Amino acid sequence: MYMPIGNSFRFTAIKKYQSYKINLMNHEELISTLNECANYCNHCADACLEEDHIQMMVTCIRYDRMCAEVCSSLAKLLSINVPSQKLMALVEYCKNLCASCAEECSSHEAQHCQNCAAACKRCVDACSKFLYNH
Amino acid sequence: MYMPIGNSFRFTAIKKYQSYKINLMNHEELISTLNECANYCNHCADACLEEDHIQMMVTCIRYDRMCAEVCSSLAKLLSINVPSQKLMALVEYCKNLCASCAEECSSHEAQHCQNCAAACKRCVDACSKFLYNH
Amino acid sequence: MYMPIGNSFRFTAIKKYQSYKINLMNHEELISTLNECANYCNHCADACLEEDHIQMMVTCIRYDRMCAEVCSSLAKLLSINVPSQKLMALVEYCKNLCASCAEECSSHEAQHCQNCAAACKRCVDACSKFLYNH
Amino acid sequence: MYMPIGNSFRFTAIKKYQSYKINLMNHEELISTLNECANYCNHCADACLEEDHIQMMVTCIRYDRMCAEVCSSLAKLLSINVPSQKLMALVEYCKNLCASCAEECSSHEAQHCQNCAAACKRCVDACSKFLYNH
Repeated sequence: MYMPIGNSFRFTAIKKYQSYKINLMNHEELISTLNECANYCNHCADACLEEDHIQMMVTCIRYDRMCAEVCSSLAKLLSINVPSQKLMALVEYCKNLCASCAEECSSHEAQHCQNCAAACKRCVDACSKFLYNH
Repeated sequence: MYMPIGNSFRFTAIKKYQSYKINLMNHEELISTLNECANYCNHCADACLEEDHIQMMVTCIRYDRMCAEVCSSLAKLLSINVPSQKLMALVEYCKNLCASCAEECSSHEAQHCQNCAAACKRCVDACSKFLYNH
Repeated sequence: MYMPIGNSFRFTAIKKYQSYKINLMNHEELISTLNECANYCNHCADACLEEDHIQMMVTCIRYDRMCAEVCSSLAKLLSINVPSQKLMALVEYCKNLCASCAEECSSHEAQHCQNCAAACKRCVDACSKFLYNH
Repeated sequence: MYMPIGNSFRFTAIKKYQSYKINLMNHEELISTLNECANYCNHCADACLEEDHIQMMVTCIRYDRMCAEVCSSLAKLLSINVPSQKLMALVEYCKNLCASCAEECSSHEAQHCQNCAAACKRCVDACSKFLYNH
């Protein structure tokens, strides 16, 4: 059966849907990783305050707070449909900050620090993947 | 063997660990639901701009932006170890805002609106559960 | 000269402009006070980490972080043109949180705590004014 | 009079106070400019929704939302006492984003767009000054 208009419409509709879908899904993976990292950083920044030697945790708290803020912001920006090119420098910055935070956190024994270091490392990988694919 | 001090210490240590663990886990569930809701709201607010009749989406965009902001903030506050009592009014506010956003979003056919409505409803349930349990 | 359409248009245009103007200006005062409070809270939360007895500052840090987050969020929501009624409960929550933060901060001698307490009190007043006027 | 320890202590105390003072004041100027810019961007993003031809405002809304988010985040990070070097790339990113947002906003006649463009330009200048001085 010949249905040029119908097919054309359907094709556009599917293409539009797919483009939305692909776009949303790609971002969803990175957005989830960023938000999870922000959660662990926020929790670590607070839990450090209950450690016996808080003075030794000050740098960790500061990295946690910076990292949580930047990850949350990047997650929000990724929900806005702008050319990826406009986000590259921020993703790069976020990746480097997560790497620094992971290094600092992994030097402390507390479980919340170890969990945070692991979340930051997952974030470094997710950011690297984004930078590589765009 | 009788070791009152040791046992007492261990008990405290375990209790402290459990309290951390339980506290973290309880929050993690609500925090994840809130962040997921914020993602869908942020995405919906942006995707609405690409709809043919944007004028009809203005209220939806506004609820999306408010809901995303409040969910994100509540998620951050839940990572801070303060008595739950101090958060009740904000959880209540967030629950009501999510309910309004869900109602508005569910009146639009677009997939991003439907997804957002569903995420908001999950958030209403998670907030209700928190309010009931604290 | 009789120009009903022209006059009507001009009246609408002026009214629209005024409504924007008034709306923007009212909010600008509260928004500025909220942002200033968030700045002082964020700064206090960080400066507390450099105090000699950090353990005594933990509650202060936690209030600072909560207060900064809620003030920032409310400032953002006030830039969205929604009926004030929808914000009342959040303004009330913010006011109470600022009052608690002011009380905690004013109990510490450090200049950053005293500055923060003063900023929180200005915020309490600004929120009260908003609640009274709407 | 010879008071090596006393002098040394006083010098350190004064230096510490000055460093706090200078640090806080420097930041306060940039932080205020960033927050003001975020306010105008958030307001513009919302006021654009009430323009007659919203379709023509979509790019403006997206830049507004990105710019507001990045300015708010940078303001928060500037309240944390970390070496300025760690913020340079983010200040650079923020400066470029503000410049793009200013360019887009200045192409629209609406007062909120013109106000936003002016606030973004002040932010570009403030970021440039920071980059030059550090």
